[in-house]
Amino acid sequence: MSDARRHMTPDEFRRYGRDVVEWIAAYLERVERLPVLSRVAPGDIRALLPAAPPEEGEPFETILADVDRVLLPGITHWQSPNFYAYFPGNASGPAVLGELLSAGLGVQGMLWATSPACTELETHVLDWLADLLGLPEAFTSRGAGGGVIQDTASSATLCALLAARERATGGATNARGVAGPLGVYASTQAHSSVEKAVGIAGLGREHLRAVPVDDAFALRPDALERAIVADQDAGITPVMAVATVGSTSSAAIDPVPAIGQVCRRHGVWLHVDAALAGSAAVCPELRWLHQGLELADSYGVNPHKWLLTNFDCNAFYVADRAALLRALSVLPEYLRNPATESGAVIDYRDWQIPLGRRFRALKLWFVIRWYGAGGLRRHIRHHVALALAFADRVAADPRFEIAAPVRLSLVCFRLRAGDDASRRLLESLNASGALYLTHTRLADRYVLRMALGGTLTERRHVEAAWALIQETAAGLETARRLADA
Amino acid sequence: MSDARRHMTPDEFRRYGRDVVEWIAAYLERVERLPVLSRVAPGDIRALLPAAPPEEGEPFETILADVDRVLLPGITHWQSPNFYAYFPGNASGPAVLGELLSAGLGVQGMLWATSPACTELETHVLDWLADLLGLPEAFTSRGAGGGVIQDTASSATLCALLAARERATGGATNARGVAGPLGVYASTQAHSSVEKAVGIAGLGREHLRAVPVDDAFALRPDALERAIVADQDAGITPVMAVATVGSTSSAAIDPVPAIGQVCRRHGVWLHVDAALAGSAAVCPELRWLHQGLELADSYGVNPHKWLLTNFDCNAFYVADRAALLRALSVLPEYLRNPATESGAVIDYRDWQIPLGRRFRALKLWFVIRWYGAGGLRRHIRHHVALALAFADRVAADPRFEIAAPVRLSLVCFRLRAGDDASRRLLESLNASGALYLTHTRLADRYVLRMALGGTLTERRHVEAAWALIQETAAGLETARRLADA
Repeated sequence: MSDARRHMTPDEFRRYGRDVVEWIAAYLERVERLPVLSRVAPGDIRALLPAAPPEEGEPFETILADVDRVLLPGITHWQSPNFYAYFPGNASGPAVLGELLSAGLGVQGMLWATSPACTELETHVLDWLADLLGLPEAFTSRGAGGGVIQDTASSATLCALLAARERATGGATNARGVAGPLGVYASTQAHSSVEKAVGIAGLGREHLRAVPVDDAFALRPDALERAIVADQDAGITPVMAVATVGSTSSAAIDPVPAIGQVCRRHGVWLHVDAALAGSAAVCPELRWLHQGLELADSYGVNPHKWLLTNFDCNAFYVADRAALLRALSVLPEYLRNPATESGAVIDYRDWQIPLGRRFRALKLWFVIRWYGAGGLRRHIRHHVALALAFADRVAADPRFEIAAPVRLSLVCFRLRAGDDASRRLLESLNASGALYLTHTRLADRYVLRMALGGTLTERRHVEAAWALIQETAAGLETARRLADA
Repeated sequence: MSDARRHMTPDEFRRYGRDVVEWIAAYLERVERLPVLSRVAPGDIRALLPAAPPEEGEPFETILADVDRVLLPGITHWQSPNFYAYFPGNASGPAVLGELLSAGLGVQGMLWATSPACTELETHVLDWLADLLGLPEAFTSRGAGGGVIQDTASSATLCALLAARERATGGATNARGVAGPLGVYASTQAHSSVEKAVGIAGLGREHLRAVPVDDAFALRPDALERAIVADQDAGITPVMAVATVGSTSSAAIDPVPAIGQVCRRHGVWLHVDAALAGSAAVCPELRWLHQGLELADSYGVNPHKWLLTNFDCNAFYVADRAALLRALSVLPEYLRNPATESGAVIDYRDWQIPLGRRFRALKLWFVIRWYGAGGLRRHIRHHVALALAFADRVAADPRFEIAAPVRLSLVCFRLRAGDDASRRLLESLNASGALYLTHTRLADRYVLRMALGGTLTERRHVEAAWALIQETAAGLETARRLADA
């Protein structure tokens, strides 16, 4: 090596960059044929890795070959068209290239001054997204609020809670600490990140009230109001309610307008968690998802779930940024700069937990421009149509039942034969390698979740999945009968 | 378009992927000649962006051309060899390609089961890094603790505090909330993220005790002990102390062995924040930086600052993972799986604030393998040598003075002529476009920070920077004399 420090030269970067691009393109061409759920046992991957790092550098070709040899068997393929587990890992070519460009530029967006384009593009693209989703004007930079990219909905919910805590206690908590019981409200179906945030913020997980749901697994506003009033009567200060638009288990949609009225009556911060479902509002016919948002104080949606942007990209909006900034601002001497002191710029470090931040707006900008608003709508409609068609098949088969209303891209279903049969079906399907589903419990029953939304998922994949589900269920039933005989 | 949804085909991805790789390679070839600090005014970038997103998709060539036309003037070039501000944005070719591969695979690492290789490679590479840095055995997966990749040192400090809070209150806080005053201790020079974390965790920023420092800006252990005892006497429970190894302002190094003894005596969690400086411990002759770590409960270092790994990559270690997991664990039904229930695997979702996580271990693995342990040591030694040589030049010029001990890669200096002269010097240098420095205050004096550590920074850049600093100082002095005359 002529350079003892062995930096990759621009020409080496050109060559190996092309190799990695080719690896990804070929991976996307073959991912459909790989077993979706990794079959390794705990420790299998580590057993293939040397105990110590190399003393001297290795050729890039060797490293890239090890991605296939060592890592690939331990990968569960979120980009497979046959991946129906958890939530879609909804990446796309333009998003991946935006991520690459962000890494290549290697700039920090913690302050406007540390790269003005990083902040201004983010503000601008989040305004675009707000308009695409039909969010209230207050959530845009044209109003008192604005948007920011967070890593995940978990972090967005935590930021909302910190702002709510700040507002509810007149700014005292941030300065002097939690000084009395504070209550948070969310349905029994809300995401686990709400409980996690309540713990982190020092409120105590016991102060999260699990509000009952109706038959469609949506939060009951009357029960919410009773919980708030009961806390008030007990000397507990209500701080925040979370309405979920598209719950993780079943895509249940809480009635935001009625919840918003309750929150307004009692001065409670309303955070709307639309992590998965919110993206659907790019379609006018699905814009009803966002009814009542004008009563919300904050809102989050994950373009990394269903809007073709690779993880991480949560879009978090507040209607009034003042409380958020009070909760999270710091200004040490080494970050002082004329732009910040002018008050004319946004410094996103004060809108999030970490200080540093990547240039994530690039990938969202690439996605929106590559697809256009029309392309994004067609993308959503494609998956909704697939889900409705799949649900029709399930409903038409007397062995199965639909376990929750299907309105977007998630189909919850089960075998009428019961929990054990449904669990065996899931295990057998996942062991086949042909697809990957996960489960939940709804109304205390074991339920399979078919989460459509993969970028590469086409009608033929869903039809093959349904055929396999039917055959597997039949096989398990036959096996059970033989065992009983 | 044949596909109405207009996904980028694998062949289009090949073509545009090559274009972005070429863009980055050419950018790295020319970045040295670009003005380091962006010269745009607030709003300039947004003014070039259309008010509404496009209705239909645009060609990739158009989008990439806008990176040059619209964004580039608003970029402050963290990858420039002439960037000496804040901290180095220390990326490298293998790291950027690891990030690209991570985006292309698009897997989630929230659970072992969601991609076993993502978790196992992370555990393994963090053990490698622990061994490279000479960390105590307890911080590796071979002991009771272990490592995890966080986005930033801010998040690592917050996680440490949550674990410390959990341990100090016998698990009560997470369940029932902050129920009495809790104290946190860090020097006046500690990073602002400590104050932010104390606020977030509900302890109240007023309960962060700013411990005085000595003449080298290092925390005074005697003052720490007095602050702890005073709090105990006042009924405030001491929870955590932060020792900084390489402070942001001046790279001051707190005496961890003595601080650790104080913490042990009083049962206080010790977190060591070595965000910038910790990477230097890959060199045996700098391993003294980690003296006393066997007394620490947690430790964080940022390979994205000085170990050639693009942002974000903080390596966070705990000596005993029990309290961290108690503070952050959640297990909703939809995340239950056999591997988690076996207890044989790590689920990193319980080691961090968010739920989802990217495959960040890939880039660190690429970096360590491409450079090898020897290459990493040469990288650190190169910058330390540059910093010491620069400091010698400054010390030899009677107009200047060194404002803090120089042992690693940061040189703090000022004009003896005073704060105003030093500030004018900084502003004039940054306006030139030839380099970018930031400032701090030390001992209530305005100080310029020359933060070496850029991947592309060579001796000739530092020599040119020093020549420009001298000339600019001379020019300002002449201008002042003329104005006085």
